[in-house]
Amino acid sequence: MILVFKAGSTREQVTHAEERLREIGLEPHTLLGVERTVIAAVGDERVTTAEELASIPGVEKVLPILAPYKLASRELIPTPTTFTIGGDSEVKPCATRVTFGGTFIPVVAGPCSVEGRSQLLEVAHAVKEAGASALRAGAFKPRTSPYQFQGLAEEGLEYLAEAREATGLPIITEVLTPTDVPLVAKYADCLQIGTRNMQNFLLLRACGQVKNPVLLKRGMSATLEEYLLAAEYVLTGGNKRVMLCERGIRTFENYVRNTFALAAIPALKEKTHLPILADPSHGTGVRSFVPAMTRASVACGADGILIEVHPNPEKALTDGAQTLSIKEFEKLMKECRAIAQAIGRTM
Amino acid sequence: MILVFKAGSTREQVTHAEERLREIGLEPHTLLGVERTVIAAVGDERVTTAEELASIPGVEKVLPILAPYKLASRELIPTPTTFTIGGDSEVKPCATRVTFGGTFIPVVAGPCSVEGRSQLLEVAHAVKEAGASALRAGAFKPRTSPYQFQGLAEEGLEYLAEAREATGLPIITEVLTPTDVPLVAKYADCLQIGTRNMQNFLLLRACGQVKNPVLLKRGMSATLEEYLLAAEYVLTGGNKRVMLCERGIRTFENYVRNTFALAAIPALKEKTHLPILADPSHGTGVRSFVPAMTRASVACGADGILIEVHPNPEKALTDGAQTLSIKEFEKLMKECRAIAQAIGRTM
Amino acid sequence: MILVFKAGSTREQVTHAEERLREIGLEPHTLLGVERTVIAAVGDERVTTAEELASIPGVEKVLPILAPYKLASRELIPTPTTFTIGGDSEVKPCATRVTFGGTFIPVVAGPCSVEGRSQLLEVAHAVKEAGASALRAGAFKPRTSPYQFQGLAEEGLEYLAEAREATGLPIITEVLTPTDVPLVAKYADCLQIGTRNMQNFLLLRACGQVKNPVLLKRGMSATLEEYLLAAEYVLTGGNKRVMLCERGIRTFENYVRNTFALAAIPALKEKTHLPILADPSHGTGVRSFVPAMTRASVACGADGILIEVHPNPEKALTDGAQTLSIKEFEKLMKECRAIAQAIGRTM
Amino acid sequence: MILVFKAGSTREQVTHAEERLREIGLEPHTLLGVERTVIAAVGDERVTTAEELASIPGVEKVLPILAPYKLASRELIPTPTTFTIGGDSEVKPCATRVTFGGTFIPVVAGPCSVEGRSQLLEVAHAVKEAGASALRAGAFKPRTSPYQFQGLAEEGLEYLAEAREATGLPIITEVLTPTDVPLVAKYADCLQIGTRNMQNFLLLRACGQVKNPVLLKRGMSATLEEYLLAAEYVLTGGNKRVMLCERGIRTFENYVRNTFALAAIPALKEKTHLPILADPSHGTGVRSFVPAMTRASVACGADGILIEVHPNPEKALTDGAQTLSIKEFEKLMKECRAIAQAIGRTM
Repeated sequence: MILVFKAGSTREQVTHAEERLREIGLEPHTLLGVERTVIAAVGDERVTTAEELASIPGVEKVLPILAPYKLASRELIPTPTTFTIGGDSEVKPCATRVTFGGTFIPVVAGPCSVEGRSQLLEVAHAVKEAGASALRAGAFKPRTSPYQFQGLAEEGLEYLAEAREATGLPIITEVLTPTDVPLVAKYADCLQIGTRNMQNFLLLRACGQVKNPVLLKRGMSATLEEYLLAAEYVLTGGNKRVMLCERGIRTFENYVRNTFALAAIPALKEKTHLPILADPSHGTGVRSFVPAMTRASVACGADGILIEVHPNPEKALTDGAQTLSIKEFEKLMKECRAIAQAIGRTM
Repeated sequence: MILVFKAGSTREQVTHAEERLREIGLEPHTLLGVERTVIAAVGDERVTTAEELASIPGVEKVLPILAPYKLASRELIPTPTTFTIGGDSEVKPCATRVTFGGTFIPVVAGPCSVEGRSQLLEVAHAVKEAGASALRAGAFKPRTSPYQFQGLAEEGLEYLAEAREATGLPIITEVLTPTDVPLVAKYADCLQIGTRNMQNFLLLRACGQVKNPVLLKRGMSATLEEYLLAAEYVLTGGNKRVMLCERGIRTFENYVRNTFALAAIPALKEKTHLPILADPSHGTGVRSFVPAMTRASVACGADGILIEVHPNPEKALTDGAQTLSIKEFEKLMKECRAIAQAIGRTM
Repeated sequence: MILVFKAGSTREQVTHAEERLREIGLEPHTLLGVERTVIAAVGDERVTTAEELASIPGVEKVLPILAPYKLASRELIPTPTTFTIGGDSEVKPCATRVTFGGTFIPVVAGPCSVEGRSQLLEVAHAVKEAGASALRAGAFKPRTSPYQFQGLAEEGLEYLAEAREATGLPIITEVLTPTDVPLVAKYADCLQIGTRNMQNFLLLRACGQVKNPVLLKRGMSATLEEYLLAAEYVLTGGNKRVMLCERGIRTFENYVRNTFALAAIPALKEKTHLPILADPSHGTGVRSFVPAMTRASVACGADGILIEVHPNPEKALTDGAQTLSIKEFEKLMKECRAIAQAIGRTM
Repeated sequence: MILVFKAGSTREQVTHAEERLREIGLEPHTLLGVERTVIAAVGDERVTTAEELASIPGVEKVLPILAPYKLASRELIPTPTTFTIGGDSEVKPCATRVTFGGTFIPVVAGPCSVEGRSQLLEVAHAVKEAGASALRAGAFKPRTSPYQFQGLAEEGLEYLAEAREATGLPIITEVLTPTDVPLVAKYADCLQIGTRNMQNFLLLRACGQVKNPVLLKRGMSATLEEYLLAAEYVLTGGNKRVMLCERGIRTFENYVRNTFALAAIPALKEKTHLPILADPSHGTGVRSFVPAMTRASVACGADGILIEVHPNPEKALTDGAQTLSIKEFEKLMKECRAIAQAIGRTM
């Protein structure tokens, strides 16, 4: 940490700060500048936070030196993490294994919600045929209004399991609360933690306790530091298979549901070894922008794509406005494969 | 809902849309303008969402007419709701009742976290003496990093109950997850749902099932519509004692932890009958701005104030940078009383 | 400046950085921490910028110590600046002098645009009677669309001068471009630089060359540092009579035209000695929120209020939605006087 | 326009609104819904604004149907506009013509500022060799601080003209104020209006009067509607050669200088026929993110790329942190060509 003192701060204040730093385990190096006194506090600064040190009398601001996360950082693990999803336990016998974090860019496609058995099977077969590597659909739905469709719950999980058996595609589905983790973990090849739960710390901890890989979506107003600290909650539980996903942030823009902050992809790749996916469906919220932004996601280095596909988007119970039809999805897969090839990857 | 068609949309598309609207229970009134066709869909538009209708072929945009919440709205209940906190069950015998939503503006003060028995008792007595009406402190803490202090859990709740007995102040404390609701409800006079949980819909539902009043803080990137829909989750469970709290939003501003969006107070008062509080501690994140913004909160009509106070902010385990000392709090209470009086209220 | 090196940066990189710093006139103090090397560069860091130093190989981030503005800072001038507007040259004989920055809180009221002679005279007399200290109205209007009313230009300035003669109120009006500065300066007691021109640096410089005081409004997405650097452009020209005005920022909020960031008022008061005003009309954009937010502005320490008033807001050519009627303004003045008194000021 | 009335609005209020609409030239169609009265106002709604109608008593909100811009819209000109830059007057004899808006994606490269003759010539030759189609560099620099390098002014323009002669590359350079337009127009093949001047309406008008094409960058907090209205200012002056450029917006994100809102590219392409460029240098502000985001820009359909290149970014007087070296630029050009090919375009 760097502590910058206010102009006119006293010798006593500086001495007091030095003592306080030693108390919490940091070694102060004090520099008397012309306009400001500065203390560089050397040591593992994760014992404290900038906010806490900001309360020391005379301190104007505190500048952290180190990132507050460890297990997620490139410094601990300098090379990208690669792991597989699917087929790794007896209850999920049919799934094909899919590797995330490598040269191949898996596409995770499906409807926003599991609406019924036949809808799900139809879309599962269709996305598989078009080249998707995994199936996504929600059985537990976090809905903005209590008057909206809230998902089929366990019935939805059963349809997902059936779709996996029928197609071999591993399934990724959202879990909303710690007590549902064992249930969803029994069915799903990968647990999704949604944007509204990125800082549901008890859910993060619960997902750190299971064996299933975790897809942790970025909170819609999360900084990258907060995001990686959320991943750290899962990682500290012992679950090392965490992947991240840029899905749009909240800004003043009003022609999209979210502003798709794609620079987060190269930025996260510098900071962390975890695979980074992109979700252009939520990232824009507008169907006609999804193809362009999926291509952009591949071009800027996403390690996987999450995308909403429905046999009849107009009648989708949720998120129809951002969902591709099967035909649109097939066309997009072809375009994206060409881009993947152009950057030396496959899809 | 108003459906606006793209320029050049066909008669078939309009007819199809009319049929689709009737299917979901809305009566279409079609207007052929010079540049655009518009359908006004009359009926209870809460049967659908703008996003769903946006998928109808030919539709350029969908404009909702009605707010999607009901129980929280001024239209259902035109006059402000008033309710009391404290003293309403056998387990909480000592608390003094405090009324929220009336002319009197209660102040809910205390440390960010329960750090120990003596710390809590000291601050409880001090804030009571300075004029606070209720005590706030966290036993379960949602922390950005897994390496930070996470709260004393049930031990903290016990200290809170003891502080209530000692001072008569009702206690407000946060609950993080549905399964903790019964435990926290046993100790607390009022359950707080924090900003990170504003869209934890299962927690909202769980809080709708208990008898304790609920303080629901605004999510840090929530629109007012999303906020009132979150309140609607609690209200639809049958719990009518919900109060709201502006606590700062996430913007580009970097001299504050959050941008304190005080216009939300008059805006919410137009839309809802629920009491609206203000939290200038989180609303700014900077101790030296708290007094000015507390005065502003009172002046613009807040029905209550949440404020962080600690005997020694420099050593607070959490949020020290935004916490007032007891002396600062006493001074502020005096200033605020004068402002309350100037606008015909009391504190 | 503090330069933080990447983990694994080499001794050569650090040496190179030390040389580079000396080249530009800063003295490097290098600290070898366990996880990071840090250089504290001592000296007047305004010779460079954090962005420039960030390009030195091996540097991870650069943390500035000092604010980049000087003349606007509290460090140069520790006590608040007070100055008068009005009556200070032969061309403006009738205006009453008004002091900004003192205990008295002047109100600057008037219509958004000068629409005609009689409209302006009517509102000028009315706001004077209600207690306003100065008259504001635009003759040159920056309008979002080329199809909207663009202002009466010099004809409007003449009506403003006539209104000043009739009422004695000094006038504040916007100037849009450097070549108009002499013209507007001939008529106006104070030049307004609008939010869209906060970083029109040539206009800022031109306003630094005249004798008239300047009201510089905050840009709608400006940080406080950018804002104070904009003021610095005027101040470095020799014009010391600059006042600032919080007028709302652009965020995700959609129930207001802008988010009124009132904490900027105590924050600016810590950083600068210049008077800080508040504009609740633009700050919210919604008439029904203006009274509450004006009261809040007074309560949190604004040194003056800018407010839009029109005899018939429904027929105002510009900004009708946020404009008070004369009756509403009179009522608000009374409320604000009571709040001013409660905090030991007058209005 | 759609006018939605408050619940409980009176028959008189509706009648008054109908009259007011007829007065301003719109035909009201009134619908009495169960919960709300709605008036659809048919006609050219550009005669008014939603803000103005919002002041009619009883009106709760006003929803516009049509976009407020005309000349920029796809409705007026349904197919993409293509135009050339360079070689179109006697003063600019050497430039090669470059077409914007077609299948070929031109790259406009160069240093942030013209720093001197040799620097500019070096980079001009280098970017040409690597495949750039035009040269960009600033002679007039809008700088946040008055203490920073402000550009070489006309001397810089002369070096630019010399670089054009030497390489044949057309030049694009910024103009800051209306009175400089004739001067810059004498030297430049294309005038750039920077992000801080997007709503400098007099500058927009002045650029509408010249023959040179105009590159209008998006304001850093501009909505797309405001952006297209800014273009409309130039277009209404008679200058039809306007191109747009996404260059990042201001949000809460702190790991970038701006959030690169790439979905603006497909969104603008739906709304306007004008060519849409992308500026990944300013769009991120971080050199290491520029290659990924340039690839993404090409993949999502940008009609041109603006990019900062400098022989020695570490010593650049401005914007070094986001500037590529010549070697980095050459590598990037190759990657982008492959992506352009993958989507059926060339570079």
